[in-house]
Amino acid sequence: MLCTFSLVSQTTQEDFIRSIYNEALEKGMSYGDLRSLCKDIGARVTGSAEADMAVVWGEQSLKRFGFDSVYLQAFYAPHWTRGTKESAWAIDENGRIIKLNIIALGMSKGTNGLIDGELIAMESPEDLKKYSRAQLEGKIVFFTKAFDQKNINTFESYSGCIDQRWNGAAKSTQFGVKAVLIRSLAQEVDDHPHTGSMDNDDGQAVPAAALSSRDAELLENLLTKSKIHIRMEMDCELKPDKLTYNVIGEWQGEKEGIITLGGHLDSWDVGEGAHDDGAGIIHSMEAFRLLMSLGYTPKHTLRCVFFMNEENGNFGGKSYAMAASENKEKHIAAIESDRGAFSPLGFDVRGSDKQLEFIRSLKPELVAYELHRFNKGYSGVDISPLLDYYPNMLQLGLHSNSQEYFNYHHAKSDVFEAVNKRELELGCAAMASMLYLLDSKL
Amino acid sequence: MLCTFSLVSQTTQEDFIRSIYNEALEKGMSYGDLRSLCKDIGARVTGSAEADMAVVWGEQSLKRFGFDSVYLQAFYAPHWTRGTKESAWAIDENGRIIKLNIIALGMSKGTNGLIDGELIAMESPEDLKKYSRAQLEGKIVFFTKAFDQKNINTFESYSGCIDQRWNGAAKSTQFGVKAVLIRSLAQEVDDHPHTGSMDNDDGQAVPAAALSSRDAELLENLLTKSKIHIRMEMDCELKPDKLTYNVIGEWQGEKEGIITLGGHLDSWDVGEGAHDDGAGIIHSMEAFRLLMSLGYTPKHTLRCVFFMNEENGNFGGKSYAMAASENKEKHIAAIESDRGAFSPLGFDVRGSDKQLEFIRSLKPELVAYELHRFNKGYSGVDISPLLDYYPNMLQLGLHSNSQEYFNYHHAKSDVFEAVNKRELELGCAAMASMLYLLDSKL
Repeated sequence: MLCTFSLVSQTTQEDFIRSIYNEALEKGMSYGDLRSLCKDIGARVTGSAEADMAVVWGEQSLKRFGFDSVYLQAFYAPHWTRGTKESAWAIDENGRIIKLNIIALGMSKGTNGLIDGELIAMESPEDLKKYSRAQLEGKIVFFTKAFDQKNINTFESYSGCIDQRWNGAAKSTQFGVKAVLIRSLAQEVDDHPHTGSMDNDDGQAVPAAALSSRDAELLENLLTKSKIHIRMEMDCELKPDKLTYNVIGEWQGEKEGIITLGGHLDSWDVGEGAHDDGAGIIHSMEAFRLLMSLGYTPKHTLRCVFFMNEENGNFGGKSYAMAASENKEKHIAAIESDRGAFSPLGFDVRGSDKQLEFIRSLKPELVAYELHRFNKGYSGVDISPLLDYYPNMLQLGLHSNSQEYFNYHHAKSDVFEAVNKRELELGCAAMASMLYLLDSKL
Repeated sequence: MLCTFSLVSQTTQEDFIRSIYNEALEKGMSYGDLRSLCKDIGARVTGSAEADMAVVWGEQSLKRFGFDSVYLQAFYAPHWTRGTKESAWAIDENGRIIKLNIIALGMSKGTNGLIDGELIAMESPEDLKKYSRAQLEGKIVFFTKAFDQKNINTFESYSGCIDQRWNGAAKSTQFGVKAVLIRSLAQEVDDHPHTGSMDNDDGQAVPAAALSSRDAELLENLLTKSKIHIRMEMDCELKPDKLTYNVIGEWQGEKEGIITLGGHLDSWDVGEGAHDDGAGIIHSMEAFRLLMSLGYTPKHTLRCVFFMNEENGNFGGKSYAMAASENKEKHIAAIESDRGAFSPLGFDVRGSDKQLEFIRSLKPELVAYELHRFNKGYSGVDISPLLDYYPNMLQLGLHSNSQEYFNYHHAKSDVFEAVNKRELELGCAAMASMLYLLDSKL
């Protein structure tokens, strides 16, 4: 009776967040649900049978909980297939043959049979301007840029190398090259090649594949001693666009304004998409389950969105934003998780100084759970298109410990077994707590 | 020329810490050195040939660098051996036999052949007072307490269960029990039993072993339906004390006062002691290498200490402290790493409010490297005895992400492959940076 209202409210908030974490850590469903997505469905590139099944899985999974409605949002998206042929060999001047670990980049065309070309190495697409067409015609260009190990946030290292994957093929094509190889965008030196999307320049760009980082270093060394020829074959292809869906669970509140929480349901077609972005799907779904199981009543309308096609087109994110605008919805905030199931450290804020200040004002409620990092940064690919229609909305990205992420990203190693149960659970609780705080305070 | 001295100094400090991290992440030797300790030496319980070889390894490893002297500090320590027999079975009323995953607790005596007793479960040694001697005589007592999953810092969950491992056998002995089983002090429910030290009450305590957490849950369930008999055999034994050594590298400065940086060289005899405490050894050694390779000149005398016998007696830590006092050394600070090779989050401060305030004043230099958590807490087992002689010295413990630690701690799973290269490197850089800051500012 001596407490002021604000003190009561403060205590209640603290207790509620504590109960979110208790539920997630003691009675959490996240680990079992991620196992199901990874093992019962598997890798799920847009257009595949697995992606279609992931939509069914997503709808059925959300219907277990107390959403007011669960529905699908249809759109057409690219349908790229890896095919069955994906091989490459290096041959030196003495005729020594080395089989390489490669993986076609997403959206690449195939080679149309076994091709052959001399390997020309350069650090990045920037260096193409040092060459004439005559020097590169008929060759296979190799972009060698490695991750900068010095960055504490490994996403900065990733950004520093993305040019060779996204632009390498399209920029090389005008030189008459036969194909492009890139060093994988990977943190460690190991045998896993890492795929990822490239700009195929409306089908004009030459075929491109990523080498494992170890093979990339091997080739760089071999090139100091000998000319190297590459022989390679890939039969990947881009088929006609195919109908697919976002999966949406809606929990209605009385206040005007929608808050979206989501990740992406598609993955690349290797591994199991456990960290990328099975974790984001489970973080989002479990966050809602946590709030529902604790008897929470939403103030705003809260949406759990499983976006399709983040990896190669983002037609899920674009369709969601377009539909929101057409339906004259009012979107006030969105949170995305797309950085793996690792220990959460905070949230990146995509917004104004004032929005950053608001998020930082929540730190006292969250720092006991290791959430201490609230800086300006990127939110997420899927929720980004909303900013085209709602430029003043608040967007957050879950910021997780990034030290291991690029060992798994877009590679065969991204499987359920690479996920730690407690770290996944902490991510769910972090998402639920932030959703709760935004819903209470916006 | 416009800068004040303090601004120059600030910038230099920032640059120096940045260069520590660059060296650790780009040219670090830590991962290879940990591989060597884990694979070339292996598990190294005090008294074993592997522990003796670890001393040789430690001395040779430190001699690669620019220490003024590298020397051994001799003392006698317990020599406990697991033996070759370690088996247990549960048998229910219908004669169903289940083989159990057990591991003898360190310092336990053996069973002297196959023993047989009815299993009586209780949560913790506290519950013994509810029983009479007649109820427990000839029985096998089973302590069932599980980790509290709700703690964010899993060391709190560990502390909450330590009583059953440390005191379970000694406290049960007076009831005439034949042996004690405990649920492993483990975070996950899996098949690994986790060992660890127990109070053997000068040889009076009955034999004790840990069950894997999954087997502990199985037995708890079986007990709701049937009486259970246990048959078990262990031939572990405590042999006469044996001569062993701490390994010390000393780097002399001109200012009075010694700063110690260390971890423990011994481990349990299963797995490879990668996280516990290979990581601490490598963190400490690499921290010195980093400072030396950057041309640093120490102000105080800095010591790298590989302590022996942390796991079952702490005679390394006690001997180091006693020798320090006898030699009238002046110890001003010590830092220990003994929480695994996971991403470092800060340092726990064992000291006064003023010392905590001083450490917190260093946060602006460190927060860019995710070091944000500076709270009062425990320093480390090995450096604790120094406080008996130097009660006003500053003691720090490296505080790492604890979410995975108790999946590996004292179990077969604690192997090199469970260590992430970058997280190990970040730990080395954190230790080096703190050593540098203490040396500069104390």
